[in-house]
Amino acid sequence: MTQPLPAILAHLDETAPAARDRLIDWLRIPSISAQPAHAADCRRAADWVRAELESIGFTASVRPTAGHPVVVAHHPGPGADAPHLLFYGHYDVQPADPLELWTSPPFEPAVVEGPHGPRVVARGAVDDKGQCRMWLDAFRAWHAVAGGPPCRVTVLIEGEEEIGSPSLDAFLAANKDELKADVAVISDTGMWDIDTPAITTSLRGMVYGQIDVRAASRDLHSGMYGGSARNVLNLLTQILGGLQDETGRIQIPGFYDGVKELTNAQRVEWDRLGFDEAAYLGDIGLSIPVGERGRGALERMWARPTADINGIWGGYTGDGSKTVIAAEAHAKLSCRLVPGQDPAKVVEGIRRFVADRLPADCTAEVQVFSTTPGIEVPADSRWVQAARRALGAEYGRPAVLMGCGGSIPVVESLKRLLGLDSLLVGFGLNDDQVHSPNEKFELRCLHQGARSHARLLAEIAG
Amino acid sequence: MTQPLPAILAHLDETAPAARDRLIDWLRIPSISAQPAHAADCRRAADWVRAELESIGFTASVRPTAGHPVVVAHHPGPGADAPHLLFYGHYDVQPADPLELWTSPPFEPAVVEGPHGPRVVARGAVDDKGQCRMWLDAFRAWHAVAGGPPCRVTVLIEGEEEIGSPSLDAFLAANKDELKADVAVISDTGMWDIDTPAITTSLRGMVYGQIDVRAASRDLHSGMYGGSARNVLNLLTQILGGLQDETGRIQIPGFYDGVKELTNAQRVEWDRLGFDEAAYLGDIGLSIPVGERGRGALERMWARPTADINGIWGGYTGDGSKTVIAAEAHAKLSCRLVPGQDPAKVVEGIRRFVADRLPADCTAEVQVFSTTPGIEVPADSRWVQAARRALGAEYGRPAVLMGCGGSIPVVESLKRLLGLDSLLVGFGLNDDQVHSPNEKFELRCLHQGARSHARLLAEIAG
Repeated sequence: MTQPLPAILAHLDETAPAARDRLIDWLRIPSISAQPAHAADCRRAADWVRAELESIGFTASVRPTAGHPVVVAHHPGPGADAPHLLFYGHYDVQPADPLELWTSPPFEPAVVEGPHGPRVVARGAVDDKGQCRMWLDAFRAWHAVAGGPPCRVTVLIEGEEEIGSPSLDAFLAANKDELKADVAVISDTGMWDIDTPAITTSLRGMVYGQIDVRAASRDLHSGMYGGSARNVLNLLTQILGGLQDETGRIQIPGFYDGVKELTNAQRVEWDRLGFDEAAYLGDIGLSIPVGERGRGALERMWARPTADINGIWGGYTGDGSKTVIAAEAHAKLSCRLVPGQDPAKVVEGIRRFVADRLPADCTAEVQVFSTTPGIEVPADSRWVQAARRALGAEYGRPAVLMGCGGSIPVVESLKRLLGLDSLLVGFGLNDDQVHSPNEKFELRCLHQGARSHARLLAEIAG
Repeated sequence: MTQPLPAILAHLDETAPAARDRLIDWLRIPSISAQPAHAADCRRAADWVRAELESIGFTASVRPTAGHPVVVAHHPGPGADAPHLLFYGHYDVQPADPLELWTSPPFEPAVVEGPHGPRVVARGAVDDKGQCRMWLDAFRAWHAVAGGPPCRVTVLIEGEEEIGSPSLDAFLAANKDELKADVAVISDTGMWDIDTPAITTSLRGMVYGQIDVRAASRDLHSGMYGGSARNVLNLLTQILGGLQDETGRIQIPGFYDGVKELTNAQRVEWDRLGFDEAAYLGDIGLSIPVGERGRGALERMWARPTADINGIWGGYTGDGSKTVIAAEAHAKLSCRLVPGQDPAKVVEGIRRFVADRLPADCTAEVQVFSTTPGIEVPADSRWVQAARRALGAEYGRPAVLMGCGGSIPVVESLKRLLGLDSLLVGFGLNDDQVHSPNEKFELRCLHQGARSHARLLAEIAG
């Protein structure tokens, strides 16, 4: 068949105002998943996108879960031999408060001029309605010009991402066969900057737990017992104060087992990005980076594991004084993991780290709340290669292969429950105010994102 | 004049049942200073002891304060040339709950048989009504046999000791002239054991403060910032985890300035006591002593300073997980001080200790809530020498010179506001259940304590 891409891109250019209006329409629905009062709005937002999918040749349905419903849709594309893509997104949004900090009402989308041209300001503008709209617009253009996408497409749009996707794993497990695909495509990440597209190829995982240390069988008077009885708070600081050595290297036994060094190519590419860590830290009132000495800023945040105390408590924490030697002390500890680390071994290392520093007359319990591995998408997979070609063609410069310091839980769920790798191609910018007042999405990103997805479909179809 | 002591001791022996009944009478008054409902009972307990003092030749009055009243009484003794002693005690008691753990009602004193003979079980039995009764009985016997004590005596009995003596300092300052004396005598401490009398000659002081450390200007997401931004909780544990080195030596700069080594005589005397630290720690579920390596247990608790974290908090302390890098962290820190340490220098050392470990982009505030010096009564003072002779004669063995790991705030107030040293001669036992259900006082201690005080008056009069 004739390559229809030029016509599809032209169609996207011609229909950009309508694309903007479709986004605005969806953004008017206050689909706040966290607030029970908005349950009907969540359902409306799901119906809205189901109807949208049906209007461009998909069979689509709104499917119940224990919480907010999931929208599932299918398009057979050119037939059973075509590559099969699963597009994941979410129609739910974060609560909008504090409302008084918005320059326009969060669910009355405003198009305002910014340094990059017009932008839409509304809750959900980029996270994730705007980013879903890009691939929906790409499907619409393929449908209008070529009768449908050049690949088989399954769409999965959930309504609980902003509350931790409590119903998603069960839904994936129960609908494993229906959700079969070759790869998942997710647009919920960012670009390097508005001129530089990016593909996120690694995500850090996490081990999150709590350490409970006990010494004396009861709280003691520090005058009577000070100098003889173990102070469990001093002990806890001695244990946790040793998590890093003076070079920032984490001292948990076996912690770095399986951690891969950056390839030279990767290091060169990230160095070339010229990330301004001073400005990054300056924004939050800091100036001295932490992490392992001698490693680059992006390497430390994307490709190296961490050990952060997220909470600590024990003894007397009220006003003024109480001369107590406490009986127990507690801390929340999380380690961000990189691909190659085995979460179970990290948990084992944490237990050993604590036990090795624990006097024989004290006890420590390590509770583990969650473990997720770091995830890596091989940069040479056919999916990443296709995305690089598509983005390079759209932007006239190579896409950056980025890491992500946090985790995107759905990526892990898709891998674990459906066996799917994820291709993370996102078009958000750092200043999009995700989860904050005046969340916005650049219309230029919306448009070039839609063009990029149209190109990606063509590249993958080959 | 003929030495009347033998007759006085004989009188005390003959009137022991009446002495017991007077204690029981006073104990029936529930003078709980902490509970407003018992304010009238506090006033009754004050009146009771005022009447008692008037009945044995004192001029006595109940004096108002902002809180519960103070009883002040005077006896001219043999005249203006005689030594002048200020006896301090308190008529208020701790609350009695949990009531269900008492074997008899806390304000219906029960005389029950124990391994040392009969004891009185009641709230306040030893702390401090029983210990006051001893010297009141000694005054009574001197009054009955010799017409009055052989020294000038001022009595000061407050009613707010158990709530931190909030009105005492103002009362001392306002009545400085009236409360003039040569030395203060206080019975609110213990014996070594029921056969071994003790004089407490050193009390630890204290610096109590709070450390507030701040890093980032706001709470951060540990995925986005982990590996770049300072975690203030890790930082706080790194700072405080270094308070002691592996030998238990405290690392605060200048901390040990002015700390005196035990004299050999003191070390030998304390070693001879054969303190069973294993049993002491075993009672609270511990087996491994802390404090400075190579020093004796009593030395560590009585004659060496400490640094204890009394509370710590920061970040997320609720159930489950929150992936936060906190902006601030807090700890309560107290140091028990020994005589010779300058509290102001210790505060300065703590500030320096924190500042030396603080990255340049973080801030720390050290709030100081209280500072009291360690207090030492010279063992060779005429008062201590007189007490040793008196106790040695009564018990047939030398009195132990003990330290006290805590502080007795009134001792510091008497020194600071009236310039008085304190002679601490107490007759409590370790198992007296002070502040706990079934508080008791051995009648043998009551009796030998009264005889000891009678002897002490004679020894001081010379």
